[in-house]
Amino acid sequence: MPRIFKASEEEKTEGKEVRKDYFDRHSPVILCEKTAKKGKKFRVKVRVGSEYSHPDDPDHYISYIQLWNRETLMAETSFPPGTLGNQKSQAEVDFYIIPVLSMNLSAMSYCTKHGLWQSEPVEVQVI
Amino acid sequence: MPRIFKASEEEKTEGKEVRKDYFDRHSPVILCEKTAKKGKKFRVKVRVGSEYSHPDDPDHYISYIQLWNRETLMAETSFPPGTLGNQKSQAEVDFYIIPVLSMNLSAMSYCTKHGLWQSEPVEVQVI
Amino acid sequence: MPRIFKASEEEKTEGKEVRKDYFDRHSPVILCEKTAKKGKKFRVKVRVGSEYSHPDDPDHYISYIQLWNRETLMAETSFPPGTLGNQKSQAEVDFYIIPVLSMNLSAMSYCTKHGLWQSEPVEVQVI
Amino acid sequence: MPRIFKASEEEKTEGKEVRKDYFDRHSPVILCEKTAKKGKKFRVKVRVGSEYSHPDDPDHYISYIQLWNRETLMAETSFPPGTLGNQKSQAEVDFYIIPVLSMNLSAMSYCTKHGLWQSEPVEVQVI
Repeated sequence: MPRIFKASEEEKTEGKEVRKDYFDRHSPVILCEKTAKKGKKFRVKVRVGSEYSHPDDPDHYISYIQLWNRETLMAETSFPPGTLGNQKSQAEVDFYIIPVLSMNLSAMSYCTKHGLWQSEPVEVQVI
Repeated sequence: MPRIFKASEEEKTEGKEVRKDYFDRHSPVILCEKTAKKGKKFRVKVRVGSEYSHPDDPDHYISYIQLWNRETLMAETSFPPGTLGNQKSQAEVDFYIIPVLSMNLSAMSYCTKHGLWQSEPVEVQVI
Repeated sequence: MPRIFKASEEEKTEGKEVRKDYFDRHSPVILCEKTAKKGKKFRVKVRVGSEYSHPDDPDHYISYIQLWNRETLMAETSFPPGTLGNQKSQAEVDFYIIPVLSMNLSAMSYCTKHGLWQSEPVEVQVI
Repeated sequence: MPRIFKASEEEKTEGKEVRKDYFDRHSPVILCEKTAKKGKKFRVKVRVGSEYSHPDDPDHYISYIQLWNRETLMAETSFPPGTLGNQKSQAEVDFYIIPVLSMNLSAMSYCTKHGLWQSEPVEVQVI
């Protein structure tokens, strides 16, 4: 399987303290409410990068973002190069899901040059 | 090629006036500003259905939404069944793109039982 | 909706006789037996181009191939740039499906620079 | 991130000896030559399951197969339910790639009910 990168683990590696921007701009972040109503549409934003931006070059871009609830794939968005105008930015998408049970969400995103990255998980209580 | 359905054309077909709900719940609709700033992130919502809802059953659901700018694919979101809690709803996603030139956007969405549907086009002036 | 190109129709356009290589290298071709056994696995090859080859450059490549049976999507393969070693070649995939009823297959393929192209349809009798 | 299953690791877990068919029918297997010619098209078959078959039911099917070379995604095929005639079988696809350097291939496949599974890796020497 491909190696899967995670900023909070990479940062522990010796000598990698200086690469914070590299970790940041590859890491998907889940942004959503921590509580959702059962059976009601619920927005989950995923953005790749918090403080730093990533290129959108033909040979180096974010090509997909997946949203998972534990072991279940909820949705996936794929991008060709150029969606972000070939400029440095943060790939972003808002998914809309309808939760039934409490969720443990995570996101994966894939950079065509630097591989597969995972987000921190987010617990969402469904009431 | 698969036949591509469009509500505004289907409605002209004789005897199809009564099927407005069928057309509505399969038709992707683009919701966005009509003017965008060049080089700035721009949100484009696509929702399938305006007044009516579509099932999210394992054997009958909306499995993908594509966003096109003329002949160029901008982004695509795919859904497994269950994203919408297996209840009647409207598949929805917000794409974020960075426009460079004025755009003629259209959306396509695919129902696993009733095929491929296109939206009305939307002109976006980029200034 | 995006305009959908088809070699046999493009060729009728005045002045386009000279562009045979352009049409050829963008057109998906379905290669399979004309008869299939009901309930048995059946191979359907799709290759983009017959006599000519297409670039596999980061800013110009074939990014997906879809296989349709009438209005039903059977399978889709997506490629990042580089799958074909960044050299001129023909994107290719073998799908395996299990037919139940006779089929009318068609393929669609997408070039990141020149849009969406359809194959000639292929009838497969299922016995 | 979603947990990623691998038959050879799952089998070590106590009490799981009896679940060999469960592991087998979810595990993608890479079938290809061990040596490839640089710059020449090379076929890589991925089949999900070796001895056992998996359902192709609307609520339980193999929905995608990815082919990776180390941390680089080479190609991905997605299936809606029904591609395999709604009967027990083995999801299968032949990818065609053009190798440049020696490769360490792996495949991932996703079952809509039982999550993400990885293959054993395959070394391919490119000469």
